[in-house]
Amino acid sequence: MRSQFCGLVDETLIGQTVTLCGWVNKARVQSHQVFFDLRDHEGIVQILVESDQPELFEIASSLGQEDCLRVTGKVRERHSINDKIRTGRVEVLAEKIDVMNRAINLPFHSHETPGEDVRLKYRYLDLRRPEMQRMMRTRIKLVQALRAWLDARGFQDIETPILTKATPEGARDFLVPARMHAGEFYALPQSPQLFKQILMMAGFDRYYQIARCFRDEALRADRQLEFTQLDMEFAWVDEAEVQDTVEGMIRHVFREVMQVELADPFPRMSYDEAMRRYGSDKPDLRIDLELIDIAEHVRSVEFKVFAEWANHAEGRVVALRAPDAATWSRKQIDELAAHAAKYGAKGLAWLKLEDRSKGREGVNSPIAKFFDDATLNAILDACGAQNGDLLLFGAGPYKQVCDFMGAVRLKLGKDLGRIEHSWRPLWVTDFPMFEWDEEAGRYVALHHPFTAPAVDDIADLKANARIAVSRGYDMVLNGNEIGGGSIRIHRPDMQSAVFDLLGISREEADAKFGFLLEALSHGAPPHGGIAFGIDRIAALMAGTDSIRDVIPFPKTTTAQCLMTGAPSPLDPEQLKEVHIRTLEA
Amino acid sequence: MRSQFCGLVDETLIGQTVTLCGWVNKARVQSHQVFFDLRDHEGIVQILVESDQPELFEIASSLGQEDCLRVTGKVRERHSINDKIRTGRVEVLAEKIDVMNRAINLPFHSHETPGEDVRLKYRYLDLRRPEMQRMMRTRIKLVQALRAWLDARGFQDIETPILTKATPEGARDFLVPARMHAGEFYALPQSPQLFKQILMMAGFDRYYQIARCFRDEALRADRQLEFTQLDMEFAWVDEAEVQDTVEGMIRHVFREVMQVELADPFPRMSYDEAMRRYGSDKPDLRIDLELIDIAEHVRSVEFKVFAEWANHAEGRVVALRAPDAATWSRKQIDELAAHAAKYGAKGLAWLKLEDRSKGREGVNSPIAKFFDDATLNAILDACGAQNGDLLLFGAGPYKQVCDFMGAVRLKLGKDLGRIEHSWRPLWVTDFPMFEWDEEAGRYVALHHPFTAPAVDDIADLKANARIAVSRGYDMVLNGNEIGGGSIRIHRPDMQSAVFDLLGISREEADAKFGFLLEALSHGAPPHGGIAFGIDRIAALMAGTDSIRDVIPFPKTTTAQCLMTGAPSPLDPEQLKEVHIRTLEA
Repeated sequence: MRSQFCGLVDETLIGQTVTLCGWVNKARVQSHQVFFDLRDHEGIVQILVESDQPELFEIASSLGQEDCLRVTGKVRERHSINDKIRTGRVEVLAEKIDVMNRAINLPFHSHETPGEDVRLKYRYLDLRRPEMQRMMRTRIKLVQALRAWLDARGFQDIETPILTKATPEGARDFLVPARMHAGEFYALPQSPQLFKQILMMAGFDRYYQIARCFRDEALRADRQLEFTQLDMEFAWVDEAEVQDTVEGMIRHVFREVMQVELADPFPRMSYDEAMRRYGSDKPDLRIDLELIDIAEHVRSVEFKVFAEWANHAEGRVVALRAPDAATWSRKQIDELAAHAAKYGAKGLAWLKLEDRSKGREGVNSPIAKFFDDATLNAILDACGAQNGDLLLFGAGPYKQVCDFMGAVRLKLGKDLGRIEHSWRPLWVTDFPMFEWDEEAGRYVALHHPFTAPAVDDIADLKANARIAVSRGYDMVLNGNEIGGGSIRIHRPDMQSAVFDLLGISREEADAKFGFLLEALSHGAPPHGGIAFGIDRIAALMAGTDSIRDVIPFPKTTTAQCLMTGAPSPLDPEQLKEVHIRTLEA
Repeated sequence: MRSQFCGLVDETLIGQTVTLCGWVNKARVQSHQVFFDLRDHEGIVQILVESDQPELFEIASSLGQEDCLRVTGKVRERHSINDKIRTGRVEVLAEKIDVMNRAINLPFHSHETPGEDVRLKYRYLDLRRPEMQRMMRTRIKLVQALRAWLDARGFQDIETPILTKATPEGARDFLVPARMHAGEFYALPQSPQLFKQILMMAGFDRYYQIARCFRDEALRADRQLEFTQLDMEFAWVDEAEVQDTVEGMIRHVFREVMQVELADPFPRMSYDEAMRRYGSDKPDLRIDLELIDIAEHVRSVEFKVFAEWANHAEGRVVALRAPDAATWSRKQIDELAAHAAKYGAKGLAWLKLEDRSKGREGVNSPIAKFFDDATLNAILDACGAQNGDLLLFGAGPYKQVCDFMGAVRLKLGKDLGRIEHSWRPLWVTDFPMFEWDEEAGRYVALHHPFTAPAVDDIADLKANARIAVSRGYDMVLNGNEIGGGSIRIHRPDMQSAVFDLLGISREEADAKFGFLLEALSHGAPPHGGIAFGIDRIAALMAGTDSIRDVIPFPKTTTAQCLMTGAPSPLDPEQLKEVHIRTLEA
């Protein structure tokens, strides 16, 4: 139907007749001429209609935005040159215009960005905007580059089921009533975890899948009911091989899609070090601020909250230096404290170092009075504080201090403009195997119950569960966990021992994971893998904070598709067929 | 962990030390030697352990099938050469054996093919068999070749939602109760049809997706609850462009995966011609038998069922020539008649031509007595009957005769060994737009309600709905419909008219398809597409009748996953969270 894409018409075509298809971007009707831009996914080109062609002129004069046209005409040089676009030196003198479809009652115009609800309801209009086309096409390129790399290396792209078994571990499952089995349900997979492990036991050696996963959780800005991960698994590997392989893949896709060269190799950092230096297991290395432990200096100060936690076996007291922020107002500091409070802080002590040569006089802080001179100096030295700096302090249980001071660090990085323009990947390793769940009175798995512990000895694991380290690893990029994986348990006795430590009874384990235990006992090879969040990586590459910008038809935070109107009520007869009914309101 | 794949160890490695990982295929313990085959996905290699290494010999003597090992040893020439396999001229003299995992209580051995229920329950063992590895890897290669071709041509791989809106048209939907919207439900998509059309309206121009689709229908041997299709859509095209493009793609993948060159171009045949000649809209062209209309010869015969349908406006009377089948027994013919009965035949008249030179004496048939000589000769001539042939006859309503005589044709092709060893693709085109549903007293769409009619004029379509032809097309290969598509309606007034003809009220159309009608009115381009059944194409390529052989974790015909035990009963509390309960039995 067309000879060219609109956005690719340039000087090389001058004098030629072209046929273009697209949408009217903007029309300007003058007394003897109509100009309009015709748009497709490659860009726009200016079309000109002269009044000496009365029939054509009448059609052109009637055109509105988003009318869908086919235009045939001759390419010619243009008077007013626009060097910002490829087609800016030419225009097309129209000879024929077919109006394929009119756009009537438009809710908004393509150059506008209305509220997100309107954008989602009329998603096709939203997606026509060049910015949305660019972001979606970034995602498409990412996936294409990943597949090309994987296919070239013998990874097998294998589909696993969407209708599978409910596993009431982890997040909440989406349920699907079974018509042929009254009272029974399928569940949508939270990930293909067990299937990919089974594939390794089935001899597929190297697996990948761009897999849809489902979690029925409250939606945050960066979560969707369904999301996409690059799921991978390798047989006969250790963590070094998985990490080396997939970081090569990530370097490849950043080179292909972004023309960016990432570090080679990625730095490795233990979970303990990441928490200690950055208060986070997904540290944003673009920010050069670090937490500084000062417990040793404040064990005997009069400021109770410091002294108490400095002497507590599971406490932490840290300082964070905010360079050149001594000029911050009380209001700015209060805002920072409010931010910290969201992450569990009870308060946020601060100190402004105005002029160290003045001693105490040069220090402005509500808590300085609790410190003797030696302590004050020790703290300032530990922080490397310079005149003009603001210091912020956190004290409390170790994990809580990490959480809120890590959050303070990120906000400071942003507020102080100290986020480097770069891509800073790293591996975080040596995660704890278990976390103690106070409420449930039992251990929970930090990764998942199939992650191998670093020790091979079951007695050792049981004796030292609280400090056991797993063979899990996360890939972190600019403060985002973009991938997570582990070497898996491949011995049935170890898997049973871990279920046991997690408080899963033998009966429960058999009922839920019997097929896994059986498979492990039928000659399972050592194996491990990883999963990458495609939506998140695409959003990072596209330069947007919202994964909804890289998902063509996302759900709202209230779990609705505004375009189609899903979910929707159904006829009770339809429910009866699958043997359920709704509860009364 | 390994230096080589087992199946790739050959003479070039003689004298070298290799490390191999895999499963014990078969072990033979002799007094001074243990031989076993180690297997991975590339094949097997023979390992030898000598008794002069007592520790190793003891381990080797204890090995059982499917034990999972890592073996290090030296490659050497072998005495008894096996030229059937790549590794048949070498063996590996083991120096070290790590038993990674034992296989205990095996339900079957990898060289066996037990019943399908056992295979599906222990799918990982089933999939380890070389034949299953071959079939699965054929599917993987197919998908890889499709993607490579599509990516190179600018098709955009775009994901559409799995949690979407119920559309009580077509097949039965799988339902998913919404937790955040009590009493409301998502549905799993039967296909991404409307989303892909919307993507064309959103400016993506060329789309594809390897898409999971869901239909809650009774399972037949070749159906699954969830299945995979290559879904494609093009903006600004007519049917010739879609067909030319995708047949090029299919030729490409057959060349890549099967080293087979398909016809170029594929033959085109109208629906009417396909029904007339083959009694099927998916004719298997490998069989050289055709239906022959004989109504004109039997309008006034005494055999009532022939005469009646020969004179009926919607009747059909056909003959089918079975070459050299006059020797068939009564039992064989009865079996054929029973087969025809499954497809709606009331009976299957037959005639054996033993010796035409003998006139009536040379004919053996219970119905010949109803024909005068001229009629008999006319029928024999029309069929081109030769001595030794069997003729089979069908009479009845047009569609019914097509159905059962088409089925008889396929069975004859098989029974007579007349199925050519070849790949015979074709396009079937010019389908009826509507079928009249007697029961519902209304038209139903033969493809789907978004398929464009061949006529552009709404009044014409309404006046001639019964004989209206659509712009749909099917790709057929060796009697299988492997792809189906159409040019879609892109004008809102035409879409409304078609809904109207299908008995869908304005209110109902707005409720179900309001967003589509609105999108069509906002500048929708002409567009069309197609979807290919990946499971079916992979099964054809792998040479298996069952799509379950190319799906790693299929469901049974009773909709169960025997490995994981899905579907399963759930705790009522879990159901309460999504606002449903099960009906009492």
